Amino acid sequence: MSSTLAGATDQVTARLERARAAARQVGVDALVVTPGPDLQYLTGVVKHSHERLSALLVPTDGEPAFVVPTLERPGLAGTAVEAMDVLPWTDGIDPHALAASRLGGARRVAVAADMPALHVLGLRDALPAAHLELATPVLRELRMRKDATEIDALRRAGAAIDAVHAQVPGWLIPGRTEAEIGADITAAIVEAGHTEAAFVIVGSGPNGASPHHEVSDRVIQAGDVVVIDIGGPLPEGYHSDSTRTYVVGEPTDEVREVYAVLQRAQEAAVAAARPGVTAASVDEAARAIIRDAGHGEYFVHRTGHGIGLEVHEEPYIVDGNDLVLEPGMAFSVEPGIYFPGRWGARIEDIVVVTESGCEAVNRRPHDLLSC
Amino acid sequence: MSSTLAGATDQVTARLERARAAARQVGVDALVVTPGPDLQYLTGVVKHSHERLSALLVPTDGEPAFVVPTLERPGLAGTAVEAMDVLPWTDGIDPHALAASRLGGARRVAVAADMPALHVLGLRDALPAAHLELATPVLRELRMRKDATEIDALRRAGAAIDAVHAQVPGWLIPGRTEAEIGADITAAIVEAGHTEAAFVIVGSGPNGASPHHEVSDRVIQAGDVVVIDIGGPLPEGYHSDSTRTYVVGEPTDEVREVYAVLQRAQEAAVAAARPGVTAASVDEAARAIIRDAGHGEYFVHRTGHGIGLEVHEEPYIVDGNDLVLEPGMAFSVEPGIYFPGRWGARIEDIVVVTESGCEAVNRRPHDLLSC
Repeated sequence: MSSTLAGATDQVTARLERARAAARQVGVDALVVTPGPDLQYLTGVVKHSHERLSALLVPTDGEPAFVVPTLERPGLAGTAVEAMDVLPWTDGIDPHALAASRLGGARRVAVAADMPALHVLGLRDALPAAHLELATPVLRELRMRKDATEIDALRRAGAAIDAVHAQVPGWLIPGRTEAEIGADITAAIVEAGHTEAAFVIVGSGPNGASPHHEVSDRVIQAGDVVVIDIGGPLPEGYHSDSTRTYVVGEPTDEVREVYAVLQRAQEAAVAAARPGVTAASVDEAARAIIRDAGHGEYFVHRTGHGIGLEVHEEPYIVDGNDLVLEPGMAFSVEPGIYFPGRWGARIEDIVVVTESGCEAVNRRPHDLLSC
Repeated sequence: MSSTLAGATDQVTARLERARAAARQVGVDALVVTPGPDLQYLTGVVKHSHERLSALLVPTDGEPAFVVPTLERPGLAGTAVEAMDVLPWTDGIDPHALAASRLGGARRVAVAADMPALHVLGLRDALPAAHLELATPVLRELRMRKDATEIDALRRAGAAIDAVHAQVPGWLIPGRTEAEIGADITAAIVEAGHTEAAFVIVGSGPNGASPHHEVSDRVIQAGDVVVIDIGGPLPEGYHSDSTRTYVVGEPTDEVREVYAVLQRAQEAAVAAARPGVTAASVDEAARAIIRDAGHGEYFVHRTGHGIGLEVHEEPYIVDGNDLVLEPGMAFSVEPGIYFPGRWGARIEDIVVVTESGCEAVNRRPHDLLSC
């Protein structure tokens, strides 16, 4: 187990208190949070979860406790968890029963969305009278409103990935493969201060029309439009995520015209993002422009996703999401237009809602970049 | 989504048929497998799972199907899944209901142990008449018996991590920190052909007494005993994992004597590992020697864990595990002795059970290595 403090113990105390209040408000009796972004957010503890149960228990009417394999207990040294009631267990003990014994008569138990089935079903069996549900509705209320420390981390992540995009034109050379370019980008992402390259999409030519393509052995050719969507976490856990579309040589008229529509769409969505409007309205701002230009059927995904300790988290910028935006919410604005079998384009910045609008943490030019 | 074939489509067909047979035998009506090592084993598909459901459905009395977000569908190209009934879904569709619609009247539905709660609880709600349970008892019957291809991958993983251990003495220099040495090791693990350094433990002096310590800013000093436990996955997904204990300069008599006990214990457990004996008996072979030498209370963990597409999987070499070993089972043999606050030592090789005994895939010397 490794761990880093999300901040001072005061911060952890405050976040736990807000989590309990949010849980109480919806009638949840206890939260159970296994290692992952929710645990990192609430306690600062980061851990690669193996098969042994580690879990934060947050009863709404009692003190938090932390279940941990005895072996992993030294890893809690120096974290805010040390001040809690720590419940160590050794091989041979049923850790789910141990957790259940601390949850008393909880009837509604909310678990982290990424808790593995191994523990979800273990808790179900250890708490036969309880109803299990997702903690997401409770914890997203906290996590999707970033505080100043978190916004600063997203700004640093944005600057780090911008520094990688700035180098891309030097690598996008006809004759090289997507995979070779991807390897350069991967190294640069780490060099720029990320702990890893969480995703590296180099979608050239027809591959650019698959939004979640990664890399392939396709050789870059003159005239290719290339979608490059890259990012990863900084050491403190907050992620970068930015897409730019490049063209090798001169774009055709079709590429130029479609790209201009996309650029207007992306900028319209950013202009629409401000406190008081719905997430759906930001999606519609981009979608309307693409639809009006006759390409609606080729914009096949939502406009964006929240970002923070996870690459994808609340709020989702998607049709039907009536969530009203508030200052501190951070998400991608990334419309795309994809012509199957031919080419595609996407522009993506991360923005943070401010008091009056939003701030983009990515600053690279939006123009189609010839190289 | 990225994907690699675990092997030919024939292999996938054979593994799926064995999974269905094993499920039928225990009375399970369907398996639901989300991205992770079980999915990689059964189909060759590797994927970073985000919040959207991708899942292999394996009804025991019907044909397998694959639920996938439309966006991710191109990632299935070239995999064995393409030949299955693919059920794509777009944002706005309930993917759990879609999966449920293919599982008909299944009463016992077994899910992958690493399926996130998001999907476990979604399936529970979409299948109100079904009982969810873990697929582990079914799939471990397949996964813990490695075939020739898998054993070969474990051998290559063993050779790769041995090449890293061979370089360690050059880095273990007084005045350097554990973290600096860890950075050298991390780079060498990737250089040796792993896709990443999944874990790097450099436990020097008192830190060596915490079995799951990672690295710290502690400065290496003359006389330190240093436990180095390292590994990661090869591109095909199989893991390395090997521990050696080093001493900076000359060991004390105490260190020399305790280490000799540990070395005998590790070698006794390897000698005990063969078809027909229980996993528990291998644990006891190591434990008895350490106990008889008076250090039993300082050997605080099980002797080993299975390894393959996961770092920790079945079979666990632990007291109480009556599983009878068979050829092809692969696991670590890693006893340790830990004196809290002072020092610790561990020796770990991965072994594969053969027809008559077992084969170690790690070949570095077991002696306490002075550097």
